[in-house]
Amino acid sequence: MLLIIANVTAVIATTVDTIYEPYARLFRAFEIFSVAVFTIEYAARVWSAVEADKYSGAIVGRLRFASRPLLIVDLLAIAPFYIAITGIGFDLRFLRALRLIRLFRLLKLARYSTAMRTFGWVLEDRKEKLVIAVFANGLLLVVASSVMYFIESGAQPEEFSSIPATMWWGVAALTTVGYGDMYPVTMPGQFIGAITAILGIGMFALPASILAAGFMEAAENELDERKQCPHCGEPVTVEGLDDVE
Amino acid sequence: MLLIIANVTAVIATTVDTIYEPYARLFRAFEIFSVAVFTIEYAARVWSAVEADKYSGAIVGRLRFASRPLLIVDLLAIAPFYIAITGIGFDLRFLRALRLIRLFRLLKLARYSTAMRTFGWVLEDRKEKLVIAVFANGLLLVVASSVMYFIESGAQPEEFSSIPATMWWGVAALTTVGYGDMYPVTMPGQFIGAITAILGIGMFALPASILAAGFMEAAENELDERKQCPHCGEPVTVEGLDDVE
Amino acid sequence: MLLIIANVTAVIATTVDTIYEPYARLFRAFEIFSVAVFTIEYAARVWSAVEADKYSGAIVGRLRFASRPLLIVDLLAIAPFYIAITGIGFDLRFLRALRLIRLFRLLKLARYSTAMRTFGWVLEDRKEKLVIAVFANGLLLVVASSVMYFIESGAQPEEFSSIPATMWWGVAALTTVGYGDMYPVTMPGQFIGAITAILGIGMFALPASILAAGFMEAAENELDERKQCPHCGEPVTVEGLDDVE
Amino acid sequence: MLLIIANVTAVIATTVDTIYEPYARLFRAFEIFSVAVFTIEYAARVWSAVEADKYSGAIVGRLRFASRPLLIVDLLAIAPFYIAITGIGFDLRFLRALRLIRLFRLLKLARYSTAMRTFGWVLEDRKEKLVIAVFANGLLLVVASSVMYFIESGAQPEEFSSIPATMWWGVAALTTVGYGDMYPVTMPGQFIGAITAILGIGMFALPASILAAGFMEAAENELDERKQCPHCGEPVTVEGLDDVE
Repeated sequence: MLLIIANVTAVIATTVDTIYEPYARLFRAFEIFSVAVFTIEYAARVWSAVEADKYSGAIVGRLRFASRPLLIVDLLAIAPFYIAITGIGFDLRFLRALRLIRLFRLLKLARYSTAMRTFGWVLEDRKEKLVIAVFANGLLLVVASSVMYFIESGAQPEEFSSIPATMWWGVAALTTVGYGDMYPVTMPGQFIGAITAILGIGMFALPASILAAGFMEAAENELDERKQCPHCGEPVTVEGLDDVE
Repeated sequence: MLLIIANVTAVIATTVDTIYEPYARLFRAFEIFSVAVFTIEYAARVWSAVEADKYSGAIVGRLRFASRPLLIVDLLAIAPFYIAITGIGFDLRFLRALRLIRLFRLLKLARYSTAMRTFGWVLEDRKEKLVIAVFANGLLLVVASSVMYFIESGAQPEEFSSIPATMWWGVAALTTVGYGDMYPVTMPGQFIGAITAILGIGMFALPASILAAGFMEAAENELDERKQCPHCGEPVTVEGLDDVE
Repeated sequence: MLLIIANVTAVIATTVDTIYEPYARLFRAFEIFSVAVFTIEYAARVWSAVEADKYSGAIVGRLRFASRPLLIVDLLAIAPFYIAITGIGFDLRFLRALRLIRLFRLLKLARYSTAMRTFGWVLEDRKEKLVIAVFANGLLLVVASSVMYFIESGAQPEEFSSIPATMWWGVAALTTVGYGDMYPVTMPGQFIGAITAILGIGMFALPASILAAGFMEAAENELDERKQCPHCGEPVTVEGLDDVE
Repeated sequence: MLLIIANVTAVIATTVDTIYEPYARLFRAFEIFSVAVFTIEYAARVWSAVEADKYSGAIVGRLRFASRPLLIVDLLAIAPFYIAITGIGFDLRFLRALRLIRLFRLLKLARYSTAMRTFGWVLEDRKEKLVIAVFANGLLLVVASSVMYFIESGAQPEEFSSIPATMWWGVAALTTVGYGDMYPVTMPGQFIGAITAILGIGMFALPASILAAGFMEAAENELDERKQCPHCGEPVTVEGLDDVE
């Protein structure tokens, strides 16, 4: 885990010229070292996969094992290095994107985190409501941006040049970020902008509320399981979680 | 449903010149095709309305059916096309607004969504509290903007030119959007601005909290109904929902 | 109530020159009319006060009645008009502030609203927690602004000229308004700014959460009162609310 | 307590030139007075420490007592004054930082506040979830800033000069502060920026929600303890809190 975090820190530090240039050799050495460690780890995992019954067969079993999501992440974390060595013909832009992929190493952390499962479980449990909330927000964004485009494009044809361009304003207004690079200047535009910002607070906070409600209910379920019926002294169960006879 | 989403995407894409111009003919063809489909759907609905007892009478029944909200949305979705064909004398601005109305097609989606009823139900259930919260926020907006106008109009007569103009600042401050086009520069103005922003977080988040509380209570009610004493086998009931003898 | 809202609208409209100037006479007439109505209402209230036993005594009772908060608001709503007529020597700035006081008429609405009592009750119930949250936020504001002043005043002596001036930035950062008129440019300043913004979300949202929790508990209490003990079939009460024997 | 608040106010006022210069002598006198009070208080505390059995030994016991966190805060609150007097060779910048340390006196307030313990208790109780939320937010910040850097550094090499520099944008976007000094201008950059802002609302609000949930549960526990069956007179207990037979 520490190696992963050190790696990500290195990728970030690499982009700062004043830090990178004096220590370029050091960064390169660390990169080679960590790729070596990750490669050995990856090779060991794939090699030992055949010992499990599920992945029998010297080559087929290993390939099937290697196609699991977490293994692909592992491969993506080391692949850029090998491509960068072999691929002489690639242009600079592509190499930079490759370096970005090294950040996938951060996702390897997920392998170690068991507590994130609770988050995943809440996401799963509230999926339906979240989809509705996201859909409603998308609808709001499209409608607000379209209305704003038709109102403001006359006064500011440069900024509000099309509906997709206006959507950048729409997201900034609905999420209340408000960068200040685009804003309505006409009276009706400001009126629509005000309505949009007010709706944004209510609507864009909903997914966060739904998640929060999920976490709270999970905590409450734990409490409920400890509740007792005052008469029989036996715990009051919630059907479906543990069914008594 | 897919046709509706494709239509809205097309309306949005039409406003981007670089996308629209090379494919103008394609967009026109797609527009004619979808209006044709929607027209047939609309005609079929109105035609078959008389088969229900509620809307008897060849013409009167159909007209009464056509005046229902969803049917009017359906009509609004196709009307702009026919008006644009016939109306030669309209100016460009009006035609653009008509194109906007085509976005009403998005509202046709509501016809298919059953999950949105939960949202509507929560809105209905919390109506009274929401009205109070909205009223309190309106009061806060009027008072904050008025005070700010009287303080800042001296230092920045251009920006804070009137109370309605200052309200644009008020909404940006209370919703914490903060575009940065208007902000107080005097010491008392900044003091009022600070108070406004702090109140804004507490007050403008209330409607969102009320909605969130509504959703959570709805989820909790569902759980309560499933609660049971395992010994006696009788539910721990909530009076009014199911009454035990 | 309608008269009050019409009055406030008139005060707001008066500040817009393009609306005010053509109809100056109309606004003046409406002002005289509403002051007349409010004066009669105020006089009637004070006059009839002696009929209640609490306020006996022709003059003393009426004066005691007139010193109640709501009656003072009533007086403040009409006083500016009479002062403006008599006071010839006042300067323009003072007259403008007087006009602002007319907005106090909006507070007269509180007299009619019964639903706002719930809000007041929740405020009362959570007073202690709210005070702590507000105190903690004040502490955070002072500390964040002071640290930022000592870091940034070197790089931007104009903007971050003193701790109180930096507090304007602090409020904008903690409330996430972010006008963009003041922001750190040095690396340590941006680091502190980032920490401040992140803490701001957690801390400044607390009062809103506390209020929201209060509203939810109020709704839950209502539900609890309807809960039953499964054995005896009698309601499960919450001690202190209604004590049985 | 009043002295502490007066002190902090004085430190803040000192930074405002227009307030400080005319009253420089007064500020200096107040500073000497409060340092004297705090020094006496500190000396008395350390002196009387040996009376407790825990800190026996004339010098060793007092030193061990003096190394407790609250005592160190007390020392830090007065130390700058003595260093400023003796240290003639220090430069101005260092002296200013020393004055900042005087703000530590504010932390002395924590000694008196008992209500803050509830906050500390909730923090302790939710520690695990908070750590996960903070970790997830850190991950989101790193990923969003890295992606944005690789997309926008081509179009705006000045602003988006490195990943750490882009993180300043990342924090402003995720916390929805949005100063407006850095924002994406390319289409893909704006798309990533929109996604970031939307995720920011959901993710950065989580710690606040977790804290809020903690406060609410604490309040609910209090209520549950008071719940009672009116017939049997026995409490509807929550196991683990009070166990019935």
